[in-house]
Amino acid sequence: MSVVEQLQQYPPPSEGEIKQMKPVITVPVAANGGSGTHSYSKNSLYQQLCANLEKEKIQEAIRKKLDVKTLSSVSNTFRIADMGCAAGPNTFITTEHLLEAIKQKYQNQCPNSEMPQFQVFFSDLPSNDFNTLFASLPPDREYFAVGVPGSFYDRLFPESSLHFVYNSYALQWLSNSPQELQDKNSLTYNKGKIHLTSARKEVIDAYAAQFARDTGSFLNNRAKELVPGGMLVIVMPGVPYGLPYAETTAGMMFDTMTSILLDMVEKGYVSESQLDTFNLPFYAACPEDIMPLVEEKGQYSIERMELTNPSSWLKGPINIHEWIDHVRAAMEGHFSRHFGSGIVDDLFGRLIQQLSDNYQKLESQYRDKTQLSVILKRKNSA
Amino acid sequence: MSVVEQLQQYPPPSEGEIKQMKPVITVPVAANGGSGTHSYSKNSLYQQLCANLEKEKIQEAIRKKLDVKTLSSVSNTFRIADMGCAAGPNTFITTEHLLEAIKQKYQNQCPNSEMPQFQVFFSDLPSNDFNTLFASLPPDREYFAVGVPGSFYDRLFPESSLHFVYNSYALQWLSNSPQELQDKNSLTYNKGKIHLTSARKEVIDAYAAQFARDTGSFLNNRAKELVPGGMLVIVMPGVPYGLPYAETTAGMMFDTMTSILLDMVEKGYVSESQLDTFNLPFYAACPEDIMPLVEEKGQYSIERMELTNPSSWLKGPINIHEWIDHVRAAMEGHFSRHFGSGIVDDLFGRLIQQLSDNYQKLESQYRDKTQLSVILKRKNSA
Repeated sequence: MSVVEQLQQYPPPSEGEIKQMKPVITVPVAANGGSGTHSYSKNSLYQQLCANLEKEKIQEAIRKKLDVKTLSSVSNTFRIADMGCAAGPNTFITTEHLLEAIKQKYQNQCPNSEMPQFQVFFSDLPSNDFNTLFASLPPDREYFAVGVPGSFYDRLFPESSLHFVYNSYALQWLSNSPQELQDKNSLTYNKGKIHLTSARKEVIDAYAAQFARDTGSFLNNRAKELVPGGMLVIVMPGVPYGLPYAETTAGMMFDTMTSILLDMVEKGYVSESQLDTFNLPFYAACPEDIMPLVEEKGQYSIERMELTNPSSWLKGPINIHEWIDHVRAAMEGHFSRHFGSGIVDDLFGRLIQQLSDNYQKLESQYRDKTQLSVILKRKNSA
Repeated sequence: MSVVEQLQQYPPPSEGEIKQMKPVITVPVAANGGSGTHSYSKNSLYQQLCANLEKEKIQEAIRKKLDVKTLSSVSNTFRIADMGCAAGPNTFITTEHLLEAIKQKYQNQCPNSEMPQFQVFFSDLPSNDFNTLFASLPPDREYFAVGVPGSFYDRLFPESSLHFVYNSYALQWLSNSPQELQDKNSLTYNKGKIHLTSARKEVIDAYAAQFARDTGSFLNNRAKELVPGGMLVIVMPGVPYGLPYAETTAGMMFDTMTSILLDMVEKGYVSESQLDTFNLPFYAACPEDIMPLVEEKGQYSIERMELTNPSSWLKGPINIHEWIDHVRAAMEGHFSRHFGSGIVDDLFGRLIQQLSDNYQKLESQYRDKTQLSVILKRKNSA
């Protein structure tokens, strides 16, 4: 007798149980998994070097603004979440930097108390490569490690359960490209373009509105999950208010991608409507985007908000090949899902070529204040 | 300039940071990942049907013994851990059954209080396929889902942070096969055998001692992680005290595996010493194994402990092919790691054949009291 036949005699699973067996369909796209040539884990050093620039400022904020005495009065476990952790290894380095500062603060502020236990929640989309992340966890870590699958635009944690949230190079990924861009009869239809770069005002506004909706959700959900006095750090691509994105290094890259895809349309590799309906859900924010979202709800105090140069660590000329390898590891999924994986090698290969051909222009593009860092603290009420 | 060259100008990562990038080497073996023919996720219905037999008893224990009023007085989040969750989907069904009973208990015991939030920690070895697990999380779940990579023989959680721990068909997997079995000059050298089945007393004693060490660690670590009043449920392969394992259905399977491997030695596919040094780290326990471990430390009260028939749901004859597919999904890794993956298809193919050839004997093997279930409650002190 087969199991199927036996099950007919056995109480069948309930409708709820059957539902549970269906896989979740997740719309957002995670960074490349695994540890191969194009994996995020092998191509994320740039992000680490950029985020590293904020290390001192974050540690200073912990030293001066995080009241660990009050935090530890309600719980003997200090909970940290890295939302958008990808498959490592950057998240482990960041965690060490945070722990170093938080432990130091405990020693200074509560010299006679026992150090709390640390639980670190590594969170990313369910499609993120958690297997690679877990396989590379530091063996000598001094914290309890946990993985949390889900979108940070949704609730991920119980109320008032986190003390520190870190979000690095993640919030630029919108939950989705703005729906308005799909309306063929509207001014927001982004014909012949793949991003807000060099797009008309209506398109840029639609992107900004989507970012406001998404980041509003992000801030709201974190406000529920953070304990009063808990800290929220955001590091992401930024841009000064009003600067056309086409003038930045990244903007030139997006425009080059567009021109390659237009050429593919001409050659028939990609259909025109495929191109017109593709809009990379990527948004570099200015402080003026974030400020009203934070102030509107009154849930947070702003401890720091500034634009910095993310490539100040870069000595000498840009290595375009390495740079685009990093871009590919983070973005490839968006292109392959929409256009099919067949065009991806060609797209990124030509991107490297064309950017190299236009090296003088690339070097002169704006990249001074293109990293935004925000440090917030959860207020006691509201 | 390459990133490597740039890094030479940039503060190099500390020794601690470099260490963190090395992968963890985990000795234990997880169930088969993915969702293919031999995956655990496709071959774990039997385990679910067996564990299901305990559902009523566990729900009854929650109803009668779990004091949710006291538990909720200290935390508004109720934390459940399934340790040894594999890649699903059984763990999701179990979680629903537990939540159903716990919520019911809350409604009865605290009719005027708000329902707590539930956080469910799915835990297994770091080599477990968490990607498959996370991709199949029930979309309509009413709990916050978390993955915890690690061995349950170690500490996995902060102190007093869990309210309910569930451990199903997992504790039979020893942390390692007993080291004494590797000593060629001792009575514990398990020559020509792969398990304690049909082995001499010294080998059986070595297995029992390893189980006592491992389960001692398991109970100790859980005692630290559970809040007072928290519940710990164990379901695992069992055997009545003193019954030779060779008389059970599983024992006959192990003996058949041994005879196939001996034949492979004869044919030269496997070396003699390879066979002699392989000992499947599998232990079916009797209540007399567990009882002294629990009583010695005084950390738990025993709410229930009994042996039951795990195949009482089986109507009609055993479907050997299906059964061995389930065994393979759970055990394959142990064989392929030691003997190489080349022999695995042959081993399990011949196992099905030989068990089918000896069907009469198989049907008459002992399988009445071969599932052990244990329900413990964390005491307030000790």
